Amino acid sequence: MQYPLPIARLIESYMKLPGIGEKTATRLAFYTLDMPEDDVEQFSQALKDVKTLLHQCSICGNITETDPCQICRDSNRDHSTVMVVEQPKDVMAFEEMGEYDGMYHVLHGVLSPMEGIGPEDINIKSLITRLQKDDDIKEIIIALNSTPEGESTAMYIAKLLKPAGLKVTRLASGLAVGTDIEYANSITLKRAVQGRINL
Amino acid sequence: MQYPLPIARLIESYMKLPGIGEKTATRLAFYTLDMPEDDVEQFSQALKDVKTLLHQCSICGNITETDPCQICRDSNRDHSTVMVVEQPKDVMAFEEMGEYDGMYHVLHGVLSPMEGIGPEDINIKSLITRLQKDDDIKEIIIALNSTPEGESTAMYIAKLLKPAGLKVTRLASGLAVGTDIEYANSITLKRAVQGRINL
Repeated sequence: MQYPLPIARLIESYMKLPGIGEKTATRLAFYTLDMPEDDVEQFSQALKDVKTLLHQCSICGNITETDPCQICRDSNRDHSTVMVVEQPKDVMAFEEMGEYDGMYHVLHGVLSPMEGIGPEDINIKSLITRLQKDDDIKEIIIALNSTPEGESTAMYIAKLLKPAGLKVTRLASGLAVGTDIEYANSITLKRAVQGRINL
Repeated sequence: MQYPLPIARLIESYMKLPGIGEKTATRLAFYTLDMPEDDVEQFSQALKDVKTLLHQCSICGNITETDPCQICRDSNRDHSTVMVVEQPKDVMAFEEMGEYDGMYHVLHGVLSPMEGIGPEDINIKSLITRLQKDDDIKEIIIALNSTPEGESTAMYIAKLLKPAGLKVTRLASGLAVGTDIEYANSITLKRAVQGRINL
């Protein structure tokens, strides 16, 4: 005997989530069966809603319910600086920090020749168009992760933008606050020495 | 800035699943955002379906799309033996084994005074009614987990049924196949010695 079809289908769906194998998916499916009906109904609706109610902002590419997004519409923010990030989650991390009040541009990925992701697969074109249209933008902060893909994407964008006379910066790299020097990797240490500042 | 509402709601739903905290739920929600629309639609529908298409079999309590379930309707199976299990998953484990061809009775839980689960909260009453109605039933195999709750539920059921003259058995406990004696706990070893068999 196999699982009843509705259960089998739910197991299959759970297995499409990252880090969830067949055993966990089965456990989750049976757990779902015992959950209150309202919770399951809400869960089902929430899944539908993220796909139907959320869109990419036509200016910055961040996910939003309204277009343009809240940040792009906010006239109290500094519209002369644009921070280029990989994902919507990164925007949220910077917003949580609360110290940055400029604009964003969300690439939705980084260049990765290995995975066949080229410049036309991420929001680079829209960044160029945006910069051409908007003369107020003076500085681009590249805030991509320091993975090989992130670094080469940063280089690519910097090369594209510099001829236009824009100031292009990247985030400082070095020792994370709270990290022990003895456990830091050598690239991080190298960056920390290169970027040392006067006291 | 907080997460857009649809994302926040999906995070909340993921957090209702067992073993999923806020960080994982957030990761899953953003992952969902990037999933193909069809997959998310199927996921949403699968959640709805397990609650609407599946019901408890009116005879054995197992989850089923049809009533009575496939097993209860199967005249080729041995209707004189009923195996009492805690969950539908247990039925599937025994069916996968393929050696048992009797009936089942799914309790949907075990007695647990600590959690306020009494005899009326699980399918014990329906078991008694079933036994009173069906004279063909000769043996009850109690196949509950050997947790304290499982053991006391087994005792409770055995006490209820024995006066009716039914044969009540429980699964053999002992060393699991493949277990090292040095790592087995002492209760398991005790059971293995008590239940030793002639070679």
